[in-house]
Amino acid sequence: MNAEIIAIGSELLTPFRVDTNSLHLTAELNRLGIAVTRKCVVGDDRAALRDALAAAMERAQVVIAIGGLGPTEDDLTREVAAELLGRKLLRDDDVLRGIQERFRRFGRQMPEVNARQAMVPEGGVVLPNTRGTAPGLWLKVRDKILVLLPGPPNELKPMFADSVVSRLAARAPARRLVSREMRITGLPESDVDQRAAPIYTQYTDVQTTILAAPGEIQLHLLYWTADEPRAQTVLKEMVERISMALGEAVYSVNGESLEEIIANELNAHAATLAVAESCTGGLLAQRLTSLPGSSSYFRGGIVCYSNDIKSAWVDVPAELIEAKGAVSSEVAVALAEGIRRSSSSTLGLGVTGIAGPGGGSTEKPVGTVHIALANTGGAKERGFRFPGDRERVRLQATQAALDMVRRYFLYAK
Amino acid sequence: MNAEIIAIGSELLTPFRVDTNSLHLTAELNRLGIAVTRKCVVGDDRAALRDALAAAMERAQVVIAIGGLGPTEDDLTREVAAELLGRKLLRDDDVLRGIQERFRRFGRQMPEVNARQAMVPEGGVVLPNTRGTAPGLWLKVRDKILVLLPGPPNELKPMFADSVVSRLAARAPARRLVSREMRITGLPESDVDQRAAPIYTQYTDVQTTILAAPGEIQLHLLYWTADEPRAQTVLKEMVERISMALGEAVYSVNGESLEEIIANELNAHAATLAVAESCTGGLLAQRLTSLPGSSSYFRGGIVCYSNDIKSAWVDVPAELIEAKGAVSSEVAVALAEGIRRSSSSTLGLGVTGIAGPGGGSTEKPVGTVHIALANTGGAKERGFRFPGDRERVRLQATQAALDMVRRYFLYAK
Repeated sequence: MNAEIIAIGSELLTPFRVDTNSLHLTAELNRLGIAVTRKCVVGDDRAALRDALAAAMERAQVVIAIGGLGPTEDDLTREVAAELLGRKLLRDDDVLRGIQERFRRFGRQMPEVNARQAMVPEGGVVLPNTRGTAPGLWLKVRDKILVLLPGPPNELKPMFADSVVSRLAARAPARRLVSREMRITGLPESDVDQRAAPIYTQYTDVQTTILAAPGEIQLHLLYWTADEPRAQTVLKEMVERISMALGEAVYSVNGESLEEIIANELNAHAATLAVAESCTGGLLAQRLTSLPGSSSYFRGGIVCYSNDIKSAWVDVPAELIEAKGAVSSEVAVALAEGIRRSSSSTLGLGVTGIAGPGGGSTEKPVGTVHIALANTGGAKERGFRFPGDRERVRLQATQAALDMVRRYFLYAK
Repeated sequence: MNAEIIAIGSELLTPFRVDTNSLHLTAELNRLGIAVTRKCVVGDDRAALRDALAAAMERAQVVIAIGGLGPTEDDLTREVAAELLGRKLLRDDDVLRGIQERFRRFGRQMPEVNARQAMVPEGGVVLPNTRGTAPGLWLKVRDKILVLLPGPPNELKPMFADSVVSRLAARAPARRLVSREMRITGLPESDVDQRAAPIYTQYTDVQTTILAAPGEIQLHLLYWTADEPRAQTVLKEMVERISMALGEAVYSVNGESLEEIIANELNAHAATLAVAESCTGGLLAQRLTSLPGSSSYFRGGIVCYSNDIKSAWVDVPAELIEAKGAVSSEVAVALAEGIRRSSSSTLGLGVTGIAGPGGGSTEKPVGTVHIALANTGGAKERGFRFPGDRERVRLQATQAALDMVRRYFLYAK
């Protein structure tokens, strides 16, 4: 069973707004075993809306149209839907009384325009709106369903939960979506695919999607099935085989973020961490503290954006910076060891590099980053050359730094 | 002249990802006088993609398809476009050499799968990709244009700027979009609208959109016109009138971020800044260092996530924390003054609070944040109670902290 979502509103065709209602609806629909096969945004335009509705009704079993149910002349969804389906729009007196009542509760009289919101296409089921004046509509069209929902998320969400989920569940297939998400770092997308494809292509029932983010590849395995236990077994086997092929680069097999994986390791080992970061400018600390409860393992961080601050706050000898340069493996190690000592943490991370766009040289171009991880026994250092702009270099540097902590615990056991 | 945008990728039909590339493209297209009349998302599905491309090519003069140009089997856009237009796919040896060269630069050999990215539909113009391996394509189809762009924003944006804008400009109409963006902080959306609406409703040629983000309201003023000088005059007048109505809460009248506004002020006053932050965990430093050249005014930051670190690194007396609590106006002031002193900066910012979800109490609930700004003459402190989850509280706290720096310079002149 498949669905299409149409978001209606000219503001959604500007550079400033994106439809996010469809993300919520997709999660709800998937839970019911219904896949979303297309999404579309049209403006408050009669012809475009009619065309989009007609095309979607041809392709999908369920069509959900969001918005355009307000009281103004821009709000065309009711009219266009009735016209497309060849049904009369009739005034529903119960709905009208409900709207009038709502205005009365807020001490106002219903403006005449709002009477439009009481118009219902013949045969339509009214979906009550507990948070606003625009009722939704459930329209059965032969063996297909057209649902009209209001645009404000705080009206749409409860209406979908209260009036649409149960109606769809009654028609939804036994088939459900079972999924796994693997996350990989330290390998480029093409390498991941080259190693994983010979495996995932053997599983023709599983839809595999590869997604690249800065410093990270995600592998989404989706299995639509009526036999959930079997699907779980199949996905488990796939995850194990792909993990074997990709090795240590796989950091998560259940969609956890790198921050979460590290948090678990640090907590499990009763270890603490502190960071001294230059080019990442606080992003590393911010990622580490983005999780609730991070104070149990994160001691603190220093953003040492100038050489004298590196010396004054993290005890990096000025002569070392002079001799080797601020962006060097030696300074990364000094940062890691200095911050570990001064914070009395189990581990210290030091990051120094050139995020760009300025500051690069032939020898040390933009994207050059040195990262060191220190424990009581010493420090391990790695040098990187990350592609991309300032934001991307910073993201990749934090990803590599967090990954060094993760790999440390692979061997610390 | 109108355009449609098709975003391609099964991940965009999951609850986890939303297409945001189209926002950037819409802004660029509008600037060229081209309106976006429809947006669509399809999965990595040959039939759906073909159908979406064909329908869009019927309706619009310009069709932009994003994604599906990668090296994997999921990436179908090149093939489907060639098939739809009835053109052969030919290997472009220059493109192939470019991809091989790119891999060599990063010290690797090109995996065989990437050769697919060198296939070009007959008559297609290759759009170079300076940031990745997937070249874009410009296809002229009778009097219409089909543009294929890679999905990663850091590849799409420069490619569009470098290779698409000039080609489209040559075909674009005289009518242009002239726009202004005002940014406001410290006032809720309803207040902004109540004060601004009596003004902007008088300008019926200007389309005004209000957008709320954490700790910020944006006012977008859009004017489609062939008479740009007149439009600029009208918008200038509107911006001045709305600025009068909203007062100091307006921090930007040309869309600059708060970071940029502060950077300009700090540079103009040859002033420097350092931060000591607790609940924002590095986000404040990260925002301040997100701009190139920030080292000229940002000295450094300390993320003091535990009480002993606040004392050891920022000289906050342990007795003060004991007496007043870590989340208090007194500790915020001590952080601001301590960090200013130890970094020898003109200004010091101190932030302490409870981001949640844990750690709140009746007296100091989640969202309680104290922020202080110190200069040589002393410190100014403010207390806040921000609504929302951990991420939202942290965002609002950094916004308020940066705004205190901005307001300082309003009176420092």
